[in-house]
Amino acid sequence: MYKFLTALENQIRMMKENMDTTKIAQVIDALQNAKSIFVLGAGRSGFVAKSFAMRLMHCGLNVYVVGETVTPRIEKEDVLIAISGSGETTSVVNISRKAKELIGSKLIAVTSNPDSSIGRMADVVLLVKGKVKTERDEELSKIAPLGTMFELMVMIFLDALIAELMSVRNLTEKDLEDRHAVLE
Amino acid sequence: MYKFLTALENQIRMMKENMDTTKIAQVIDALQNAKSIFVLGAGRSGFVAKSFAMRLMHCGLNVYVVGETVTPRIEKEDVLIAISGSGETTSVVNISRKAKELIGSKLIAVTSNPDSSIGRMADVVLLVKGKVKTERDEELSKIAPLGTMFELMVMIFLDALIAELMSVRNLTEKDLEDRHAVLE
Amino acid sequence: MYKFLTALENQIRMMKENMDTTKIAQVIDALQNAKSIFVLGAGRSGFVAKSFAMRLMHCGLNVYVVGETVTPRIEKEDVLIAISGSGETTSVVNISRKAKELIGSKLIAVTSNPDSSIGRMADVVLLVKGKVKTERDEELSKIAPLGTMFELMVMIFLDALIAELMSVRNLTEKDLEDRHAVLE
Amino acid sequence: MYKFLTALENQIRMMKENMDTTKIAQVIDALQNAKSIFVLGAGRSGFVAKSFAMRLMHCGLNVYVVGETVTPRIEKEDVLIAISGSGETTSVVNISRKAKELIGSKLIAVTSNPDSSIGRMADVVLLVKGKVKTERDEELSKIAPLGTMFELMVMIFLDALIAELMSVRNLTEKDLEDRHAVLE
Repeated sequence: MYKFLTALENQIRMMKENMDTTKIAQVIDALQNAKSIFVLGAGRSGFVAKSFAMRLMHCGLNVYVVGETVTPRIEKEDVLIAISGSGETTSVVNISRKAKELIGSKLIAVTSNPDSSIGRMADVVLLVKGKVKTERDEELSKIAPLGTMFELMVMIFLDALIAELMSVRNLTEKDLEDRHAVLE
Repeated sequence: MYKFLTALENQIRMMKENMDTTKIAQVIDALQNAKSIFVLGAGRSGFVAKSFAMRLMHCGLNVYVVGETVTPRIEKEDVLIAISGSGETTSVVNISRKAKELIGSKLIAVTSNPDSSIGRMADVVLLVKGKVKTERDEELSKIAPLGTMFELMVMIFLDALIAELMSVRNLTEKDLEDRHAVLE
Repeated sequence: MYKFLTALENQIRMMKENMDTTKIAQVIDALQNAKSIFVLGAGRSGFVAKSFAMRLMHCGLNVYVVGETVTPRIEKEDVLIAISGSGETTSVVNISRKAKELIGSKLIAVTSNPDSSIGRMADVVLLVKGKVKTERDEELSKIAPLGTMFELMVMIFLDALIAELMSVRNLTEKDLEDRHAVLE
Repeated sequence: MYKFLTALENQIRMMKENMDTTKIAQVIDALQNAKSIFVLGAGRSGFVAKSFAMRLMHCGLNVYVVGETVTPRIEKEDVLIAISGSGETTSVVNISRKAKELIGSKLIAVTSNPDSSIGRMADVVLLVKGKVKTERDEELSKIAPLGTMFELMVMIFLDALIAELMSVRNLTEKDLEDRHAVLE
């Protein structure tokens, strides 16, 4: 467990050193100007996408999860945030292509692999390091198998983005709490 | 299978004979005047609730499923539709009570048992017959076990309600299709 | 609402008249002999798939929903049940193809359209009538928009199949109840 | 964003310093000896629970998510892992009580608050620090609102636990990949 936590600390240090503040400002802008935001991911990346969507809702933005019950038709003025470590997850690629090519929505890709199907399609690529499911790294694969490190680093990155969004929108914790579900 | 389908035909005939048009008009009104609609159900009743929520969204209403990602805090001006055959499903009762007593939202109960915890709490009770999970009926239990008949009859009833809602709101199939998700 | 219920009664009568008992026996066999059963559907067909999966679990079979958390890799000895009215829903077609061509699993298609991508790929086609989302029928589309009639008829058909399965496996309602979740 | 990442680094350092290896061994044991494992959480803690459940499945354990479709009745020989920062989330408390008192299952609580309803009920309490939803901390609440820090630290902790479990069970990344869903 120590080794795992130390590997994670290294990843966070690298994230701090490589923070692209221009791109982050660009994404914050895109989120605030979208008519609606749609999030998308498969497996554990999908759970990270949902965790982010819930906070965007708490921040007062209009947000939907692809595949959930009340999600409407995506439109041109909407933004789709697609999460895939490899950038090649079949369903994520197919759905992103539909949104981008058929509808003309803005696509933000969160991936470790900018030179992937999703990376090449995206308007903005948020590069998040961390070994992905299809990479091999003998030491790391014993303590953080498959996409573990990518998924954790995306969850961390997106929660950091929420911190930024709160500051830009001048939101307090109380504002978020007022929108938090009570029926649970 | 014949016996099952015949039993179902009998239930539908009974539903036609006992249709309470005053109450249906009242529910249609409540749905249209709500700020948002929340739906709630456990197990298979939960899937029926979600099927209904999806159609309400297609009809242009503001709707959320309790427990899904983007569902916000329920408010006083909102309506909660709670589905439970017995009217005693623990989570459904607890959540309905919170909405009713803590928030003051309007509660519509869909149940076989008006004299249940949910039935007694509700502003409107939509009575849907069909054997529920806790009832015993030797013949029926062999072909429609547990809440099968109730769940089917609620799905049918709520789809009939959508037909009514479309007529009242003057909606065509094309209007619904325009809101139907394309990312799937 | 009367018109809707009458239309549904007609559909059920047609289902009784066109029951293909040989094919039903074949499906019951496939379900019982599968190592695991996987179910798949998008939107409201997905909720029907889940309702069916829950009952298969209650009947003591090994069953998973494609896309849920604990669903493992599908294998050659498994059966995939794919529900799509048009037989052309993108995600359902892509996933079915993967199961069929890459893994070699058995594919059972539940569709209104046997001459569709899914219909042609399937080992067994369960034909369920009822207007599907892409069909047009002026009278019906006002009361049962999009895939409503197909989804309802599949839910009914699969619950009738459960009745058959209970009889073949000699199961009582009590057996199902013993497997029913209590944490809800 | 820097402040958020630095706060997180501090939390991880504290987690390393306070690692209770005896308790971790005890939990690994409980997971391996359980007939089935059930996981439970509301909101973002629920997504973390699901992420963990998926990895437990990849590790070859029998695991279910409370509230998902194929989840059967919990039994005496099963373990329930309940995640709640405050230890007071209504649904999590009610369901844990049912499992513990009605069925007699083993309960592992993951919480920031050992002196809570869930903490007091549990057989084992996994204490995970990180501000929870109901705590107030002016500095932290601006960058990590509500339960953010708790949810992240639990996700990290449970992924570290997977590293430990892989080592104890002698599993390689390849073993996990062989169980990873391909239909997505």
